Amino acid sequence: MELSVKLIDISTGDSPVVLITRKAAITHDLHTSDRVIIQYGEKSVIATVNTAGNGFLPDDHIGMFLETAFSLGVAESSKVTILPAPKPESIKVIRKKMEGEELNEQEMMLVVKDIVDRKLTQVELTYFVAACSMFPLTFKEIGTLTKSMADTGIKLHFDKPMVIDKHCIGGVPNNRTSMITVPIMASLGYTVPKTSSRAITSPAGTADTMEVLAEVEIPSERMMQIVNTVGACLVWGGSVNLAPADDRIIRIERPLSIDVPGLMLSSVMAKKYSVGSTHVVIDIPYGPGAKVTTIEKAEELRKNFQTIGKLLGMHMLVITTDGSQPIGNGIGPLLEAYDVLSVLKNDAGAPQDLREKSVMIAGLLLEFIGHCPKGKGAAIAEGQIKNGAALKKFNEIIDAQGRKQLPALARHKQDILASQSGLVTGIDNITITKIARIAGAPISKNAGLLIYAKVGNKVVRGEKIFTIYADDPGKLTNAVAYIREVANPYRIV
Amino acid sequence: MELSVKLIDISTGDSPVVLITRKAAITHDLHTSDRVIIQYGEKSVIATVNTAGNGFLPDDHIGMFLETAFSLGVAESSKVTILPAPKPESIKVIRKKMEGEELNEQEMMLVVKDIVDRKLTQVELTYFVAACSMFPLTFKEIGTLTKSMADTGIKLHFDKPMVIDKHCIGGVPNNRTSMITVPIMASLGYTVPKTSSRAITSPAGTADTMEVLAEVEIPSERMMQIVNTVGACLVWGGSVNLAPADDRIIRIERPLSIDVPGLMLSSVMAKKYSVGSTHVVIDIPYGPGAKVTTIEKAEELRKNFQTIGKLLGMHMLVITTDGSQPIGNGIGPLLEAYDVLSVLKNDAGAPQDLREKSVMIAGLLLEFIGHCPKGKGAAIAEGQIKNGAALKKFNEIIDAQGRKQLPALARHKQDILASQSGLVTGIDNITITKIARIAGAPISKNAGLLIYAKVGNKVVRGEKIFTIYADDPGKLTNAVAYIREVANPYRIV
Repeated sequence: MELSVKLIDISTGDSPVVLITRKAAITHDLHTSDRVIIQYGEKSVIATVNTAGNGFLPDDHIGMFLETAFSLGVAESSKVTILPAPKPESIKVIRKKMEGEELNEQEMMLVVKDIVDRKLTQVELTYFVAACSMFPLTFKEIGTLTKSMADTGIKLHFDKPMVIDKHCIGGVPNNRTSMITVPIMASLGYTVPKTSSRAITSPAGTADTMEVLAEVEIPSERMMQIVNTVGACLVWGGSVNLAPADDRIIRIERPLSIDVPGLMLSSVMAKKYSVGSTHVVIDIPYGPGAKVTTIEKAEELRKNFQTIGKLLGMHMLVITTDGSQPIGNGIGPLLEAYDVLSVLKNDAGAPQDLREKSVMIAGLLLEFIGHCPKGKGAAIAEGQIKNGAALKKFNEIIDAQGRKQLPALARHKQDILASQSGLVTGIDNITITKIARIAGAPISKNAGLLIYAKVGNKVVRGEKIFTIYADDPGKLTNAVAYIREVANPYRIV
Repeated sequence: MELSVKLIDISTGDSPVVLITRKAAITHDLHTSDRVIIQYGEKSVIATVNTAGNGFLPDDHIGMFLETAFSLGVAESSKVTILPAPKPESIKVIRKKMEGEELNEQEMMLVVKDIVDRKLTQVELTYFVAACSMFPLTFKEIGTLTKSMADTGIKLHFDKPMVIDKHCIGGVPNNRTSMITVPIMASLGYTVPKTSSRAITSPAGTADTMEVLAEVEIPSERMMQIVNTVGACLVWGGSVNLAPADDRIIRIERPLSIDVPGLMLSSVMAKKYSVGSTHVVIDIPYGPGAKVTTIEKAEELRKNFQTIGKLLGMHMLVITTDGSQPIGNGIGPLLEAYDVLSVLKNDAGAPQDLREKSVMIAGLLLEFIGHCPKGKGAAIAEGQIKNGAALKKFNEIIDAQGRKQLPALARHKQDILASQSGLVTGIDNITITKIARIAGAPISKNAGLLIYAKVGNKVVRGEKIFTIYADDPGKLTNAVAYIREVANPYRIV
């Protein structure tokens, strides 16, 4: 049946929804929460039916919530056709995976295509994610899933013999090594089309921190231009639409905070595969309070990345690093950007741990790609900081993406003092993260923490160990109360 | 924060949704698809946030879609409080089940309570169902799940030493034995508080067929009165609110058409447990085209029902029967009601298979509960039909529930003729079901099929083998086209 579009200014988040009157529903034997296909010219979308009274729209109209109208590109009064939606083919494949069977390349592609085309409902997609969690994906499946995810999104091709990429699996506050290693590598002439994520549960993602200095929402064509011009970029992956299935899968994993190992590998590797990376360095920080808690788990993950990389024809340098405390001094987008700038400016007061880790990664990478013999990489990387080449390259990247005015630090602050004298034996990443988020990071770019003592430092009772910055006095009070009433990140003995 | 309610005349189906303006969302750091608690006096509900433009409501108002307004009992301009919703406790339990661990009684209750209180989103509930599918529930888990589902709904107590119940796992068209065995048992003085379901994928459920003759949407208090007065009832389970978690679980199983064995056992047994059944007969029809396809699977299910019944302290009579073709002649609510009435009226032309099966079940049940020695039950049951006592009791049940006027048969009909002479060797349940549903059953109560030949009958080319009835000539044409173009249910050799 054909219906006239009435635009309805409501967003539901992810799932396309359409509205028809209760009378139209009876006439056409449709029911609330039925799944239908809406066709508009060549375009179509699968949507869920909601029903409404006559106050909202006439019986021969169809109401389109924003997500649905956007996917179809309809305008007010456009004519669309509504049909009952058949069950997507991939349902059978999901059932097969739920029975513990391995999926082949065609089957995996069917599922991923239906995810991207929004043919699967949230419930159906959850069955897929659950099956991948309970019957772990084989390496072959991870490989085909990764390729399918990349192939159903935008793919970039750089006309270079070597395309370098870097990824950190996260969980350690600050740790902004990408913003230093990427300009070092690019300053030596290498191509590094780096995409990063925004914070989900952390005080800042690389994209949030970079956004303090430059625009990061860069469409793929402009990203290509930037990389072809200055050799590298540091943009938000969400704006490039690489491997779009991944986003929808992650959204389904979040409610249960589950981390399905095979899906995580695919998620990372699909993005590297999409930009045509040939050489990839992966950083796996481990330790209490990090995402990966033990060296055994880090080692297993390292091997898995190696295996998948080989399957996809990429050269993988996978390193495991100490992730037991924050790397750098600032926590929150602006404070982390300060740290990056001070390392690149070769400031004497720059955080040594961030500097050393970034130099180590860039150095290993230089040796790995054959730029220099073993043992010589770190010195070359450090040289690019000392001679100003890395900073110059970083400024070129910032200017190419669109430079932004640095904001001022948040107005409200409170120093937190050591409650006893002694040796700092631990700084809990999870508590640090919690406090910085209560203070407003990453939504307030200029909120967060500045920490003065690291593990191994001696402190004296009453000495400042960190300062909390917040835009809003209420948030500051809440952050301080959290430390007093729930947890202090510092262990001093 | 406190907001004023604006009622919004939209139904979403199952999940509570609230609407705030995009500006209010930014102010209160809420996002589209966030989960929030809405409090109104003592009542609260977990809802999903949608956002809208200012055209829909002012910034200090909260829009309530119908399901949300209904759960809270709010009126226009009621004041409610909105709070971020913490993750429900049961999430941890679901994660435990996903890791393959057995859940204990308290954990199972936590999940079921959160299902009933609508604290779990559809995605979260899907993880639970998926886990129960991939790590099959142990008998202990099925027992605790059954009790939890019963305990979180309405429970009925009849002051009788023996409460009898009956259930058929379904899959065979017509097969309306409950409508005959229940009055037989009640006519002998037994208590049979029977609840039945409506059709989901079949041409009619017992509740749909009974609804042709009597009201079936009977609240629990009236159901108690009816059973205490006439000894039995035949009502729609959905109106009694027994084991409400079950409905939500079934709704999650449907999109993938998965049948999780442990959940099916709990679903059936929770309803029997809720009405205090002491003696339960379960009919498991098996055969090609039935729900259970082989005798081995039927036998396994039989043992599982026995085990769960024992755990719950119920006496179980579980029988496996021939389910390879429809039982009775009519398919669709009205045509099936005709069959039931003709058996109870002791008509010479009543379908023999339906009569014999109903008498057999009632007979076995009479022997099982010790009403008579082995081998004597069927004769007693048949006697209650012949002497009119079962029909009298059926009429009492109908009058107690509220008698309805029988509708006329659907106006449009077409005879389907045998395409060759020979012996009927098969009638496919699935194709019969499909044709009856295309013809309009169960939505059109008076649509469906009337079949004239059963397996083992000889037919002559051109002889009527069945008639299709439809309310609408288009549906009749579609049903006939389906037979010609897709499948004919009759196998004649």
